[in-house]
Amino acid sequence: MARVTSFDVARRAGVSQPTVSRALRDLRGTSAATRARVRAAARELGYVPLQSGRVLSTRLSRRVGIVTGELSNPFYPGLLEPMIAALHQRGYLPVLIPDDDLDALNPEPLMDGSLDGVILTTAHRGSAVPGELARRGVPCVLVNRETGERNADVSVAANDEGARQAARFLVRLGHTRIGFIGGLAETTTSSLREAAFAGELRRLGRDLPSRLVAGGPYSLGHGRAGFARLMSGRPAPTAIFCANDILALGAMEEACHRRVAVPGEVSIIGFDDMPLSALTSVGLTTISVDLAEMGRAAVHLLLTRIARPGLPARREVHATWLTPRGTHAPPRPGS
Amino acid sequence: MARVTSFDVARRAGVSQPTVSRALRDLRGTSAATRARVRAAARELGYVPLQSGRVLSTRLSRRVGIVTGELSNPFYPGLLEPMIAALHQRGYLPVLIPDDDLDALNPEPLMDGSLDGVILTTAHRGSAVPGELARRGVPCVLVNRETGERNADVSVAANDEGARQAARFLVRLGHTRIGFIGGLAETTTSSLREAAFAGELRRLGRDLPSRLVAGGPYSLGHGRAGFARLMSGRPAPTAIFCANDILALGAMEEACHRRVAVPGEVSIIGFDDMPLSALTSVGLTTISVDLAEMGRAAVHLLLTRIARPGLPARREVHATWLTPRGTHAPPRPGS
Repeated sequence: MARVTSFDVARRAGVSQPTVSRALRDLRGTSAATRARVRAAARELGYVPLQSGRVLSTRLSRRVGIVTGELSNPFYPGLLEPMIAALHQRGYLPVLIPDDDLDALNPEPLMDGSLDGVILTTAHRGSAVPGELARRGVPCVLVNRETGERNADVSVAANDEGARQAARFLVRLGHTRIGFIGGLAETTTSSLREAAFAGELRRLGRDLPSRLVAGGPYSLGHGRAGFARLMSGRPAPTAIFCANDILALGAMEEACHRRVAVPGEVSIIGFDDMPLSALTSVGLTTISVDLAEMGRAAVHLLLTRIARPGLPARREVHATWLTPRGTHAPPRPGS
Repeated sequence: MARVTSFDVARRAGVSQPTVSRALRDLRGTSAATRARVRAAARELGYVPLQSGRVLSTRLSRRVGIVTGELSNPFYPGLLEPMIAALHQRGYLPVLIPDDDLDALNPEPLMDGSLDGVILTTAHRGSAVPGELARRGVPCVLVNRETGERNADVSVAANDEGARQAARFLVRLGHTRIGFIGGLAETTTSSLREAAFAGELRRLGRDLPSRLVAGGPYSLGHGRAGFARLMSGRPAPTAIFCANDILALGAMEEACHRRVAVPGEVSIIGFDDMPLSALTSVGLTTISVDLAEMGRAAVHLLLTRIARPGLPARREVHATWLTPRGTHAPPRPGS
């Protein structure tokens, strides 16, 4: 079947083609009776206006780009799901742009006019993309990670306070040999959490020696490798704080593999509280942040920015809290 | 900064605007020297062609729609991740269209010319959307679920054989009271798996009485409810086959909650082997299918269909196998 065009609708309704466009877009210059006739004709013919025509005439695509990390890290589905639902509710569809490697992102699809704005989930200190988008007037919001510059709209967790909560919790349980498995140093989620964690431990009379710190990409595999490295030192730590839940899951995998009891021999704490972490079979003790709220706030910031480009930059910081589940305990006597 | 246009590039390169378009698109009618000059000018000015112009001139958007269920079901990220990577590799970006409710999907965004094709992950018997897309000439592939009609491109698991493998495995372990937790009856993933499972049990001299069958949406919550219902009967089943892994995870959650030992008191088997099921802390015994291969095959079918609309419909059925992990055991003596 050939595509039904606005000319077919015009013929059926007995009006001109421009009148069809105006009537379907509720613009002035058409009477209520004409609009009703045009809509009836469009419905009868099953007419769907071309999106490209709408983009050219309104300069709005009703598409928002989401630059995202690998969906195999359950953190991203947990963050994307509420963003996609919030966008959909407001009449927008998300275009996913995978960014597995921090510096390999090709920014062209973000700037070709096909997107009304962009949400970046994978920014890091030194990312060139946010500045490039700003120069070109493409609305952009950073969620979860930021670049450290203060002139962008961001929706992030209270990384400092969350890490301090983890430190206080482990010290209160009685731990003295405490390790940290971080993500990439260029990400604010890793660097801010590590700095605040180390600072709070010092304030409480503990320290975070470099031999008990592992760093690498945010992946299950790195969580395993980091755990293996930390636990091979003598004496081994009795508690490990991980910069996010996927690292913590990796650490739990490796513990299981090595038959190291969690939390009997070592406590493991994550950060993010992605939905999966709450499963009884996982039961990860973690620093929680309302991921759905953080995602919805990013969408709200972006749609506000699209509507009012001149607003000053806004920063939404989402509170964190400790959620105790099954992976923490006091250190074993004598350990 | 105002947007850099093809007119700016034309001025800088000393050529006409149509020449810029032709040169950047590698079309005939421009010399190598002109192409080089235009490209240099475009690079210097940071020119990015408008996507809407490209769509109007080539009729290709390089966007593919993926109609997807909720990302909070880890099955979908597991299926989407390889599809997104395969699309990206071929120069396409995915537009996600959420479809949480089988019949509420608004098909307009699929037919407005903004997508070169559509991959449907949520079709069911009676879905109107695939036929509607076919009538309008929009290339479409069904993945994981199908409608039952034979004139569509589909990439699915060997649902029958997988369910038979589960039946044979449980019977060989010695189970006689075996239950089934299904998904929505309208989905082929549930109906085909249930029919083949029941058929194979009968063939092996067992049966699947209706009091040991629960059905409902594919969700963690329904897995829990189904498990609660099946286990409240007397005598309770000693093994339960779930139509997919998310139902099996829900069943495991409920077992944990009720302090029913898995696999000590009851074995639980899933279907799909989503990445999460392989975590040691989850350790689900399940019927595996190569989800990455199933997703990549769907992308390949779609891009082939876009290039050659006249090809006959193709059907790719992906083999299944049983992956034994930690949720199966023989029935307890005397149970």
